[in-house]
Amino acid sequence: MVAVEELSKQGCSVKVSDLYAMQFEPRATRNDIVGCLHNPEEFNYGVETWEAYKRGDLSNDLIEEQKKVQEADLMIFQFPLYWFSMPAIMKGWMDRVLVQGFAHEFPNCYDSGLLKNKLALFSFTTGGSKEMYAKGGISGDIRYLLWPIQHGIMHFCGVKVLAPHICFAPEYVSEEKRKEMLIAWAQRLKALWKEEPINCSPEWYFK
Amino acid sequence: MVAVEELSKQGCSVKVSDLYAMQFEPRATRNDIVGCLHNPEEFNYGVETWEAYKRGDLSNDLIEEQKKVQEADLMIFQFPLYWFSMPAIMKGWMDRVLVQGFAHEFPNCYDSGLLKNKLALFSFTTGGSKEMYAKGGISGDIRYLLWPIQHGIMHFCGVKVLAPHICFAPEYVSEEKRKEMLIAWAQRLKALWKEEPINCSPEWYFK
Repeated sequence: MVAVEELSKQGCSVKVSDLYAMQFEPRATRNDIVGCLHNPEEFNYGVETWEAYKRGDLSNDLIEEQKKVQEADLMIFQFPLYWFSMPAIMKGWMDRVLVQGFAHEFPNCYDSGLLKNKLALFSFTTGGSKEMYAKGGISGDIRYLLWPIQHGIMHFCGVKVLAPHICFAPEYVSEEKRKEMLIAWAQRLKALWKEEPINCSPEWYFK
Repeated sequence: MVAVEELSKQGCSVKVSDLYAMQFEPRATRNDIVGCLHNPEEFNYGVETWEAYKRGDLSNDLIEEQKKVQEADLMIFQFPLYWFSMPAIMKGWMDRVLVQGFAHEFPNCYDSGLLKNKLALFSFTTGGSKEMYAKGGISGDIRYLLWPIQHGIMHFCGVKVLAPHICFAPEYVSEEKRKEMLIAWAQRLKALWKEEPINCSPEWYFK
């Protein structure tokens, strides 16, 4: 993995959550709360995980992931784009790890979200070409689909985002072009510390 | 469930996939392909499920769901909005059920997607208020987040969508208001057969 190698070389301490290798559970269920429920009569996942977080009663896999988030200055999410979004296993990471009390707690959301001072970067590959994902293209500007992810999730938690890193249609280009994509990614990582977050306003997405 | 009751009353044949009750698997893995792989050297989920679909070698849970889709004139997706999108378990349904060959097959996508002549309706509840999800509101127009779902998934497969049915912040309103929400939904369902699909162009989402 290019990013692990490159960032380690720079002296960064890198932690990887390989969700498939971990067989990470994507489903948000009662199992995420250890022990008794706050309100066993009417199960409300958001309320129960919030209460469990405060009591230290979230399931171990969630506590582990939250520790990694807590320690991170930068989170890189690497994935293949599935249906204009992240694969379900990664969506499950968002659904289950970013619980109220840990990542946000009204009114601490958006600019005052609890994970402010952290950065995120979405790095992904697509099936469709750059032309399909251009403004006016059949799949629309790729930024449209970044709104729920970058604004709805990250900005909501106070996380600032660096520009996304997008490799268009690696499946359909030559081996040489694929190598160039990896080299470009490594190049970008070398100078990542100089980058400023994007201005996460609706204009960035829909201008 | 209001929709099952109301549509059954109208004489519709209704099939329900209660994903949590089914413990539906959201992760897209090699287990979705029964028997040998097309290319065991380099696992490509999209290619392998496409080939397995053609051979009739998808896992049983996927075949069952595809049968339901095949028979349906209208698919109603009911969910609580999680992070500006559907919960991971439902995203996993999209990732795994709508395989190439079944739901789309280049160049049969968008208007000529393989599920054309079907309708979908996204019915969901939110945590945030209507004001937060208004244009200029802190969470942006709710239509922004419908783009990946309605256009990126449904339209891509040729499915036309009816206007979404949104219950804003039911957790934070009175019991009476919640009852009114259910009555309004039942009312809408009574006349659903008269509705025309929305014009699924970028203008609907971002005008």
